[in-house]
Amino acid sequence: MSFSPLVDRLLEALRVLPGVGPRTAQRMALHLLERERDGGRRLVEVLGTALEQVGYCQRCRTLTEEPTCTLCRSARRDGALLCIVESPADMLAIEDAGGYHGHYFVLHGHLSPLDGIGPDDIGLALLDARLDEGGVEEVILATNPTVEGEATAHYIAEQIRERGLRLSRLAYGVPMGGELEYVDGGTLSRAFNGRLPFQGD
Amino acid sequence: MSFSPLVDRLLEALRVLPGVGPRTAQRMALHLLERERDGGRRLVEVLGTALEQVGYCQRCRTLTEEPTCTLCRSARRDGALLCIVESPADMLAIEDAGGYHGHYFVLHGHLSPLDGIGPDDIGLALLDARLDEGGVEEVILATNPTVEGEATAHYIAEQIRERGLRLSRLAYGVPMGGELEYVDGGTLSRAFNGRLPFQGD
Repeated sequence: MSFSPLVDRLLEALRVLPGVGPRTAQRMALHLLERERDGGRRLVEVLGTALEQVGYCQRCRTLTEEPTCTLCRSARRDGALLCIVESPADMLAIEDAGGYHGHYFVLHGHLSPLDGIGPDDIGLALLDARLDEGGVEEVILATNPTVEGEATAHYIAEQIRERGLRLSRLAYGVPMGGELEYVDGGTLSRAFNGRLPFQGD
Repeated sequence: MSFSPLVDRLLEALRVLPGVGPRTAQRMALHLLERERDGGRRLVEVLGTALEQVGYCQRCRTLTEEPTCTLCRSARRDGALLCIVESPADMLAIEDAGGYHGHYFVLHGHLSPLDGIGPDDIGLALLDARLDEGGVEEVILATNPTVEGEATAHYIAEQIRERGLRLSRLAYGVPMGGELEYVDGGTLSRAFNGRLPFQGD
């Protein structure tokens, strides 16, 4: 764009959004300025407020604008289950899948000594305090199935093992609905090693 | 999302962007809140300013925050050529293509009597005033090759015919680099009717 310095700055600013390149930024800017000024003003207001007010839940560290999130305050969740995830996005994916009705704890990352990310940075002191309260019977270590996620899960398991809680990890195996041909080797050999008795109906 | 009413409102507000559905809105919101708060604040500031200050250029009606756009003020453009387009996006596409160095006039839409969009709504009074100034020798009617775009081009041509200016329309034909097999019938028959003598090298 070259006819307005301010519109040029808007194109640049929109590039902060994930997956938005020059063409998409241009389409978004023109859409907002030509047809959606009201919606644009609403976005400015809500995004500004969210950036100012949204912080971490004091109990589970997920994103919320209140001291504790609505999920932590819900009386309908099972207080005996605590699922540890790396990010709010993982938490949302599990919620969307349905079936889990316990609580969460969000690390906002994983241990990464080379990047200077240690136990304090992923909130393990708060996790300890949380477990000190009692009530939790099982901790589900749902970090990502990556080297860093595995290492983080093992570290946490080590830290809380003495509490005598049930510790679990998500099952590994071939994803549902896929074709074996396209499953990577690491996953396939995990699925072989963890094979289960066939249950014909 | 269900753990924060404010984050829910942010997801809703992001949906105003073109091509952004629920999944993308979630990815954008978490990206801004988890990793890009500074970039998010810059977006809030620039978008807010743009929505407040960007209006139409007084000469060509493109988007600008100043009385006239940088292109209208440029001494390097050819004042004898005026290209009429439906939107700033069309103008940008022509600029990106390169090769045209005249001025523009932006209609911000096309005539659509059923929707109550008449000559005043597409700035034809300003176009008249612009042509009254003199200097323009050729008007290029670059409205979209749609029924509404064609009708608008014909209406404008009728209105300014008595001025004795050269009037032109973009060439119709098969697009460069495509395969004939995939060109629609209307375009193909246009290209046949407008066929040109073959020029061997």
